[in-house]
Amino acid sequence: MNSSANSPGQLQPDASSHDRLYKIRHSLAHVLAQAVLQIRPDSKLAFGPPIDNGCYYDFLFETPLSPDDFSDIEKRMRKIIAERQQFVGSARPAHDAITHLKNLGQGFKAEYCEELVTKGETEIGFYVNGPFEDMCAGPHMAHTGEIPPDCFKLDSLAGAYWRGSEKNPQLTRIYCLAFENKQNLESYVEQRKLALERDHRKLGKELELFVISEKVGPGLALWTPNGTAIRESLENFAKETEMLAGYVRVATPHLAKSDLYETSGHLAMYRESMYPPMKLDGDNDYYLKPMNCPHHHQIFNARPRSYREMPLRYAEYAAVYRYEASGTLSGLLRVRSICQNDAHIYCRLDQLKDELRATFNMCLDYYHKFRFQNVVARYSTHSLDKPEKFANNPEMWDFSEKIVLEVLKESGVRYDEGIGEGAFYGPKIDFQATSVTGREESISTTQLDFAQPISFELNYIGEDGKEHRPFIVHRAPLGSHERFIAFLIEHFGGAFPTWMAPTQVRIIPVKPGLESYCKELRATLHSKFMRVDLDESDNSFNKKIREAVTHKIPNMVIIGENEARDRTVTLRRYCVKEQLTMGVDTFVARIERVVKERVMDNFGDVEVG
Amino acid sequence: MNSSANSPGQLQPDASSHDRLYKIRHSLAHVLAQAVLQIRPDSKLAFGPPIDNGCYYDFLFETPLSPDDFSDIEKRMRKIIAERQQFVGSARPAHDAITHLKNLGQGFKAEYCEELVTKGETEIGFYVNGPFEDMCAGPHMAHTGEIPPDCFKLDSLAGAYWRGSEKNPQLTRIYCLAFENKQNLESYVEQRKLALERDHRKLGKELELFVISEKVGPGLALWTPNGTAIRESLENFAKETEMLAGYVRVATPHLAKSDLYETSGHLAMYRESMYPPMKLDGDNDYYLKPMNCPHHHQIFNARPRSYREMPLRYAEYAAVYRYEASGTLSGLLRVRSICQNDAHIYCRLDQLKDELRATFNMCLDYYHKFRFQNVVARYSTHSLDKPEKFANNPEMWDFSEKIVLEVLKESGVRYDEGIGEGAFYGPKIDFQATSVTGREESISTTQLDFAQPISFELNYIGEDGKEHRPFIVHRAPLGSHERFIAFLIEHFGGAFPTWMAPTQVRIIPVKPGLESYCKELRATLHSKFMRVDLDESDNSFNKKIREAVTHKIPNMVIIGENEARDRTVTLRRYCVKEQLTMGVDTFVARIERVVKERVMDNFGDVEVG
Repeated sequence: MNSSANSPGQLQPDASSHDRLYKIRHSLAHVLAQAVLQIRPDSKLAFGPPIDNGCYYDFLFETPLSPDDFSDIEKRMRKIIAERQQFVGSARPAHDAITHLKNLGQGFKAEYCEELVTKGETEIGFYVNGPFEDMCAGPHMAHTGEIPPDCFKLDSLAGAYWRGSEKNPQLTRIYCLAFENKQNLESYVEQRKLALERDHRKLGKELELFVISEKVGPGLALWTPNGTAIRESLENFAKETEMLAGYVRVATPHLAKSDLYETSGHLAMYRESMYPPMKLDGDNDYYLKPMNCPHHHQIFNARPRSYREMPLRYAEYAAVYRYEASGTLSGLLRVRSICQNDAHIYCRLDQLKDELRATFNMCLDYYHKFRFQNVVARYSTHSLDKPEKFANNPEMWDFSEKIVLEVLKESGVRYDEGIGEGAFYGPKIDFQATSVTGREESISTTQLDFAQPISFELNYIGEDGKEHRPFIVHRAPLGSHERFIAFLIEHFGGAFPTWMAPTQVRIIPVKPGLESYCKELRATLHSKFMRVDLDESDNSFNKKIREAVTHKIPNMVIIGENEARDRTVTLRRYCVKEQLTMGVDTFVARIERVVKERVMDNFGDVEVG
Repeated sequence: MNSSANSPGQLQPDASSHDRLYKIRHSLAHVLAQAVLQIRPDSKLAFGPPIDNGCYYDFLFETPLSPDDFSDIEKRMRKIIAERQQFVGSARPAHDAITHLKNLGQGFKAEYCEELVTKGETEIGFYVNGPFEDMCAGPHMAHTGEIPPDCFKLDSLAGAYWRGSEKNPQLTRIYCLAFENKQNLESYVEQRKLALERDHRKLGKELELFVISEKVGPGLALWTPNGTAIRESLENFAKETEMLAGYVRVATPHLAKSDLYETSGHLAMYRESMYPPMKLDGDNDYYLKPMNCPHHHQIFNARPRSYREMPLRYAEYAAVYRYEASGTLSGLLRVRSICQNDAHIYCRLDQLKDELRATFNMCLDYYHKFRFQNVVARYSTHSLDKPEKFANNPEMWDFSEKIVLEVLKESGVRYDEGIGEGAFYGPKIDFQATSVTGREESISTTQLDFAQPISFELNYIGEDGKEHRPFIVHRAPLGSHERFIAFLIEHFGGAFPTWMAPTQVRIIPVKPGLESYCKELRATLHSKFMRVDLDESDNSFNKKIREAVTHKIPNMVIIGENEARDRTVTLRRYCVKEQLTMGVDTFVARIERVVKERVMDNFGDVEVG
C-alpha cells in the first residue's frame, strides 16, 4: 500500500516523530485487510491508510458486512499477529506493477497505479506479509508479532466513494482504533466518550441553554432563560473584574453608516465577513457592526483628551455580526452573532507595557479560576515577506513586538511564535487551552494597534501641550459568550458552579404533605435573589433526585418531616455523597457566600459547614 | 388681521376654551404693531397671530431692530393700553379691501387678500384701534385697557420669510409672551427657564452622557461611560425587580430572516418603520428587529409547554431598531435605536388578570419611586368602526377589555379612554407623567395580545391534556433607556441619586500635601465598587467644589489636615448645606446602604448619620 494513498482531509500522524505508532497503524491496516479477505475472499481492496486514531481500510463487498462481524475479524487479526508474519518490501517496475495488480484482481489499485505512472512514477513498492500482498511504500513493523495484540479495536463502518467522488462505486470503510498499547487505547476511548457526552450541542439541548430557530436564521443563537442565567453570571463577573481593573463601560448601537467602515478599513479588508448593507434612498448604506472598535473610537473622539485621562479603558459586552458561510455553522462554536467580552484601552506609549501586563494577568487569572488546562499563548508578529498584509511602520512594529515579548516572558506562560500571523495594525497574542477532549481551543485574543489611531485621527494633548497618538489595545479575555460558554459547557460537563448555574437550588420534598414548608422556603430563597425551584411533581423521591442530577443542579435541598419540624434543610450537592443538615439561615448564608465569592464548588471548592 | 393668517406649524390656542386669553394675545399683537410703527413708521406689516405662549408680529424694516429696543416698545405698548383704545370691527367688500390695503402701503396684506379673493372670499374683516388699522377677523377685547399691563413681555427677535418661503423677503419676527396675568406670565417664564436648563440634550452634553456621531449615523446614540453608568444602574434595578416578580431573562439576536416578520405581520403592517433588508444571494432577506416579541415567541415555541409552567415571563433589555424619518430625530427622544425594558408574559386566560394587576403595580411602584408627577393612564380599545385596524375576535376583545377596565379601576389611577386607538392584537394601556416643564410624556406601554399566539401557533397543554392558546402581555414599565433617561435627566435636572450617578463620590483635598490619604481613600472606595474620583487638579479649593457642583456629583468628600490625621472624611452633599464628618467605615457603610437600597437622596431621602 502506498502511504500517499490517504483520502484527503484525514489527519495523518507524522511518520518521523511517531515512528513506532505509525508503523503499528500502518501494519494493522494490512492485518485488517488480510482478516477481512478471509471472510470475504471476493472483496476488492481500495485504500487503507493509517490515520490519527488508528487506520481504516476501504472494501468493495459482494455481501455487505455489519458490526456484528467485528469480533470475528478482530479474532482473525489477533491470530495473524500471533503468526508473526514477516513484512517484506520489494519494488516492481511501474508497468509490471499494473499487470501484477490486475492479476491479483485488484482493479482499484491498478487504476491508481496507472495514475502514478502518468505522473512519472517508475517504480511501485509492494509489501508482503504471510499470504497477503499490498501495493505499499511502507514502513512497517518487522513482523506482525510486534503489534501489541490488545492495542487495537474495530470501531465503526462507514460508506465512502472510491477517490471521494459520488460518481464512483460506493465502498465500505472499516475504521480501526489503534494506539501504542492497551492503556492508550482505553484512555482514547474514554476521552472520546467524554467528548460525546459533553458535546455542547447535546448538553445545550438537554439543559435547555440555547436554541436555533429556522425563522430567525442559522448561526443566530437565541439564549433561553437557563443559558441567559449563565451569560449574565459571566457578564457580571467580567463587569466586576473590569471595574476593579479601572475600566469604564460604554454602550453602542449595532449598526453604522458605511462612512465608519470606510475609515476603519473594514469595508476594504473585511467586507466578505460582514452582512450585506441596508440600502437607503438618499442616505448612506448602513452595515451591522462586525467589531466594536470603530464605535468606541467615536466616543474617544467626542471631545479633546488630555494625557491626564489616559489610559481610557472602554468596555462593552456587545453583540457583533459576521456572515460566516452557512456550511461552517456549528452549535455555538461557529455562529453569525457573537457577544464579545470586548474592551479597548487607549493609552500613552509609556503606559503600554503596564496595560499589556495587566491584560495578560486578567486573562490568566480568569483561566486559573476556571481551571483551564495547558494554557499557552500564540504570539503573532508581522513579517517583512508580506508587506501588503502589515501596516508600514517599522518603528512601531519594533516597539510593540519588543513590549509583547518582554511581557510574555515575564508572565511565565508557554508561548510559540507565528511569524507573519499578526493583525494588519499590530502584533497579537491568542491564549489557548486544551479542552477535556484534548482539543486545543483559542480562548481569547489581545491585539496591539498603532494604525487605527492614525486612520481615525485619535489624539490626546500631552504634557508638552502637543497632540500625540494614543496606542490601542483590543482585548477580550473571555472571548465571546458563544465560544466561551460552549467551552465551559464541555469543560464542566454541564455542571456549572452555583454562581453560574441556571437553577442554583432545587427543593425536593421526600413525600407529599410538606408543600407549605417547601413553598415558604422557596419564597425565602427567591427573596435573596437565588435561582430556586421546587419539584412539585408526583414523581417518586428517587425519580426527583435523578431528575435534579440529570439537570446537574448543584444544590438539592431535601425536605422531610424532620426538616419541616426543625425548620432545617438537608443539602445534597451534585455528585457529592455526603449530606448536610443545617438551619435555613446557615444555608442561605452558605449559598450567598458561594455566589458572592464565585466559589468553584463544581470542582469541590467549598468547605463543609 | 385675519386669524387664519397663522404661519403653519405654530400652535394656536383654542379660541373657544381660552376665550379671554386668546383675545388678550390677539389684541396684544395689534398693540405691538402700533407701538413698533411709532418708532419705525416705514415698516411693512406681515402676519401677527396669537400663539400658545403669546403672540408675534412679522415686520419688514428699513432699519433693523434689536432687543435693546424692547423696553421702549414695551413702554409704548403700556401707553397704548392706558389709552383704552376701542377695538372696532368692520367688513369691506374683498376688492375694496385690496385697494384699501394698497393705499395703506401694506403690500404683504394686499397680496394675501388677493389670494383670499381667488379662494372665493367676498368680504374681508378689519379692526381699528386708535390710529392703527389691521386686516383681521377678530375677536378682540372691547378696548386696549382690558389688557392687563403686566401680563406680557417682549421675548425675542427671529428671522422669518414671508409665507415661509426662502424665495420671499426676509422679515423680522418679534415674539411677545402673554398670559392672563402677571403671575401666569412669571410662572411660564420660570418653567421655560427650567426647561432650557434641564433640556436633556444640553445636560447630556455638559454631563457627558451620550454622543451622536456623524460617522455612525443620526438617531444612533452612543452611550459614554457616564451615560452607561446610568443605564446599567437602571438596568440592574429592573433586573432585580423583575427577578423578584418571577421573570426569567432571555437574550436574542438583533436581526432575523424575513420569514419571522412575515409570520408576525411586521412586514405587512410596520415595514415603513423598519430598516431596509440585508439582501443575501440564495438566502432570505434579513431585517434588523423592530421589536422583540417574535424572537421571544421562538423561545416559547422551542419545546412543548405545559399549563404547570405558565405564566412564563421572558424579560430582555434589548436594542431594537426603527427607521424614523431624519427630520423627526431629536436628542434621545426620537432616535433610531432604542433599548427597551421589554418582557413578554405568556399566561393562561385565568391568569391574565393577576398578571395585568402585577404589571400595573410594577409600573406604578417605579413611578412612585422616581417621584413622577400626575401619573395617568391612557386606555386604548378597539372600535367597531374600523374593522380593518383590529383583529376580528369579538369574544377576546370583550374578555380582554373587561379585564383591563377592572384592573385599571382597582388601581385607582386616573385614566381616559381612546376608543379605536388600541393595537391590532388587543387593548393597550399607556402610562403618562407630566415633566417638570409641564409636558405630558408617555412613559410606558402595556399591550394585551390574543392575536400573535394564533399567528405563531403558540400553545400549551392544559390540565385537560388538550392544546390551548396562551395570552400574551407585552410590557415595558421603564419604556426604553433612551426616552426614560431623557425624561429622568430633565426630571432630576441632571442630579441623579447616588445609586445612579455616573460619579458617586468625588474626593476633594482642601490643599496640596494630602495626596497620599486621598489616594488611599480612593482605592478603598473603588475596591467597594464605588464610582469614585479624586480631584488632582491645581485648582483652588473653591473651584474644585464648583466643578463638582457643576457636574452634579451627589457626594463630595472633603479632605483637610484634620481628616487625614483622624482618618475621617467630611461629606458634603449636592445642594445640601450641612456637612458631616465621619469615619471612613461609617462613610463606606452609608454609601453602600444608599446604593443597595436605591435611596432617592437627590430628593433628600437620607437620614443624617
